Amino acid sequence: MLKRALGKTIQELRKSAGITQTELGERANLHRTYISEVETGTRNLSLETIANLAAALECPLPKLFSRMQHALTHMAEDPGEEVMASFKGQRVEV
Amino acid sequence: MLKRALGKTIQELRKSAGITQTELGERANLHRTYISEVETGTRNLSLETIANLAAALECPLPKLFSRMQHALTHMAEDPGEEVMASFKGQRVEV
Repeated sequence: MLKRALGKTIQELRKSAGITQTELGERANLHRTYISEVETGTRNLSLETIANLAAALECPLPKLFSRMQHALTHMAEDPGEEVMASFKGQRVEV
Repeated sequence: MLKRALGKTIQELRKSAGITQTELGERANLHRTYISEVETGTRNLSLETIANLAAALECPLPKLFSRMQHALTHMAEDPGEEVMASFKGQRVEV
């Protein structure tokens, strides 16, 4: 849940900055597929990687975590969206 | 530098809470020696461990990072203290 909230926050900041995953990867010296995994919340990022991404997004760490906490609250209030988001882009057998 | 600043912040919060490294370890389900390494800045903590420690210290993440940024600025302004702190508890050959 925490990783998903951070990923969502990073994705929102990246979109606000109007850059692609590839461009963010170039700025932070990380591969595009890694950025993709960060945004979907499958990576348990280290302090240094979080700081690296925050710098690439020109967002101070306290602000990043304040936004993450907001995303977390939103996710807790609306589990439906969370569940749907986890299926996004996947082919689901029903 | 970043890891040292986070370690220092966690140490300050622990001391403000009036608890030992062992007690913090028990609250966060981490070993005392690990807490010691966190506080001296030798560990590159993951998001989940940072969140775990913040919860054990009853400190919201945005506040933790705001304090860390303050510690970072202080360390940058006073490199002497930083250098001395890195020798603390070590026997130094001169």
